[in-house]
Amino acid sequence: MTKYAILGFGVVGTGVAEVMAAQREKLAAAAGEDMELGYILVRRDMPDSPWKDKMVKDFAVIENDPDVSVVAEVIGGVGPAYEYSRRAILAGKSVVSSNKELVATHGLELAKLAKEHGVSYLFEASVGGGIPLLRPLSRCLAANRIDEVYGILNGTTNYILTAMDAQGQDFADALKKAQELGYAEADPTADVEGIDACRKTAILADMSFGCNPDPASIPTTGITSVAAADLELARSLGYTVKLLGRAMRTENGCRAFVQPHLVPLTHTLASVNGVMNACAIRGSAVGEVILCGPGAGRYPTASAVAADIADAVRHRAAPVVPDLGALGGKLAPEEELASPWYVRVCAKPDEVCAAFPEAQPVYGTTMECAFLTEPMARPALMARLAALEAKAVWRVLA
Amino acid sequence: MTKYAILGFGVVGTGVAEVMAAQREKLAAAAGEDMELGYILVRRDMPDSPWKDKMVKDFAVIENDPDVSVVAEVIGGVGPAYEYSRRAILAGKSVVSSNKELVATHGLELAKLAKEHGVSYLFEASVGGGIPLLRPLSRCLAANRIDEVYGILNGTTNYILTAMDAQGQDFADALKKAQELGYAEADPTADVEGIDACRKTAILADMSFGCNPDPASIPTTGITSVAAADLELARSLGYTVKLLGRAMRTENGCRAFVQPHLVPLTHTLASVNGVMNACAIRGSAVGEVILCGPGAGRYPTASAVAADIADAVRHRAAPVVPDLGALGGKLAPEEELASPWYVRVCAKPDEVCAAFPEAQPVYGTTMECAFLTEPMARPALMARLAALEAKAVWRVLA
Repeated sequence: MTKYAILGFGVVGTGVAEVMAAQREKLAAAAGEDMELGYILVRRDMPDSPWKDKMVKDFAVIENDPDVSVVAEVIGGVGPAYEYSRRAILAGKSVVSSNKELVATHGLELAKLAKEHGVSYLFEASVGGGIPLLRPLSRCLAANRIDEVYGILNGTTNYILTAMDAQGQDFADALKKAQELGYAEADPTADVEGIDACRKTAILADMSFGCNPDPASIPTTGITSVAAADLELARSLGYTVKLLGRAMRTENGCRAFVQPHLVPLTHTLASVNGVMNACAIRGSAVGEVILCGPGAGRYPTASAVAADIADAVRHRAAPVVPDLGALGGKLAPEEELASPWYVRVCAKPDEVCAAFPEAQPVYGTTMECAFLTEPMARPALMARLAALEAKAVWRVLA
Repeated sequence: MTKYAILGFGVVGTGVAEVMAAQREKLAAAAGEDMELGYILVRRDMPDSPWKDKMVKDFAVIENDPDVSVVAEVIGGVGPAYEYSRRAILAGKSVVSSNKELVATHGLELAKLAKEHGVSYLFEASVGGGIPLLRPLSRCLAANRIDEVYGILNGTTNYILTAMDAQGQDFADALKKAQELGYAEADPTADVEGIDACRKTAILADMSFGCNPDPASIPTTGITSVAAADLELARSLGYTVKLLGRAMRTENGCRAFVQPHLVPLTHTLASVNGVMNACAIRGSAVGEVILCGPGAGRYPTASAVAADIADAVRHRAAPVVPDLGALGGKLAPEEELASPWYVRVCAKPDEVCAAFPEAQPVYGTTMECAFLTEPMARPALMARLAALEAKAVWRVLA
């Protein structure tokens, strides 16, 4: 028997408490011992909560209880979440986290600290929500040199793009609908500008390649400039548009970026719609695997956090901490990656043909046309686009 | 430092040796200690093999070497594979296996034996090949009551159905092509009759629900009676045809079966083509996740076996053995499951309408038509089909 504590009691925190209670026996079998909820750290009293007897407002109570072996940080952000994670590790407790912002910015430091203090540091829920992703990546695929990891890492933007594709909505209307349904926040910046996907891409880059980039250094383009015309034209070319976070091995390191991509309609990622997420992993032995599922939400996220709690307890004697940061934080330039491109322009066929003789432009219901290019790096593309006024330029997932 | 042994040196065995050598450092980090290939058990001499120094023909050499802590059984079948697995466990060695036939028929017994002798028994490669599947199911999703597991579990049949769909080939031609390409064996019975998928379904049923059915008791229909007309008609209804193995929780146990299904073209499983496999898992907290990838092949299978070897070494002090067999082996009847159905008949619209007034039949290039029904159990369907001569009757994945 051991105790765990939950830091933060919002959507995810309540989910963790419920899931840990609902599957207590099964989780005890996975952990190798029974696990009891010791404390819930809250900022204000919740006198009507069924969990009120477990609530404390002072982290020191948790920190000083030697029976607490695991702390689940589901506060979010980097202020108190960072401080409490640090203090928990220093107090000899394993930390599990769903907090992609904290893991992307301080994960390396916390992982090192965890190693020094002989505790586990796990954050399965921080990327892909409920999808088993980081554990399969690091353990089930341990016999692989990982070559690329890419996927749909943000449910809000995938919901918006799916609605734009299915209903011909423009971005603003689709965003408004997503906000009404609770899939987008009142301030949607972190989602629609790709910031959330960027943090997850940073974590994937480190888990896959030991490359620990500052998220701010990852070239990131969100979906605010994707137009209804792009979805329509993409479909007539046999593609859909998805916001992809990508991290790939290069000769001496890693390249990472977040951008809208044209994805072939026949690709499994094209079937991942609405708030679903999916991540493809290319490995030297396995080839490619794709893991799909709910990337957010109370219970899916709690499912991942609870599994981490059980895993941390199971490995108390031989803690589990991912190997992060071995390659440093430097990224290879995004622009050097050659790929086919999708270009939307307002131009006549002969103008397109002058710049891209091999292109086969398609015309939509607007005056615009779109075409795909041969594979090339970004500077070469830009040189050839000089004579055309491109409205959209996205990579094609080849 | 510990030693492992490989039993059997065919396609998978050589892959395991290669992958373990290629990723030795990474696997050592995953295992917590370096792992050296101790022995390869072979039936005949291979004097030209680069691994010849490791080869032995007498299992007793492996059995009696106390430095060997893990044995990878990749022989296949139930004869020597069963005997050596048993003896390895009795000798205090963990066993990992890619052998679905052995795991489906003797897995429960070997798991019990492994528990008694304090060693691990792992078989990730036995279902889904290289796809991280059993470990995510049992560990990453430990906080879930699993409600259903279903998927495309056999690459040969999926290759054949994909070819029939894409090229309008009939079964015999597609099988012949698969045999030429090495995707189907000279005797394709185990694949095309669903026997291979049935064994994997049996393993999934036990891992998910603790139901340990005799594979022979799982209702199993292969793809030999799927006609080119079915693919054509299914597509005009918005579906494709996939051979699915399914296992689902019932009130007091589990139901399991293997049958061709109509899968909506919008479903992620419809995008899983050729020799790829995919498995969907529905859990009480996570909702649904789908794991896709190569279900067979030398290196994908070796990827899973090597990860199991590392996992067994990592957990030498606290072995990992799945909890199997708690519910016994009894299955709920397949026919009681209500679902929509696909029916292909040679009948005129008024004849269809007389038996299924709500049906909207579609006509293909043959004289036949097909329609979908409302959800109903099999006996109710059969009663209504009495007046029609049905050529194909498959469940629709709802």
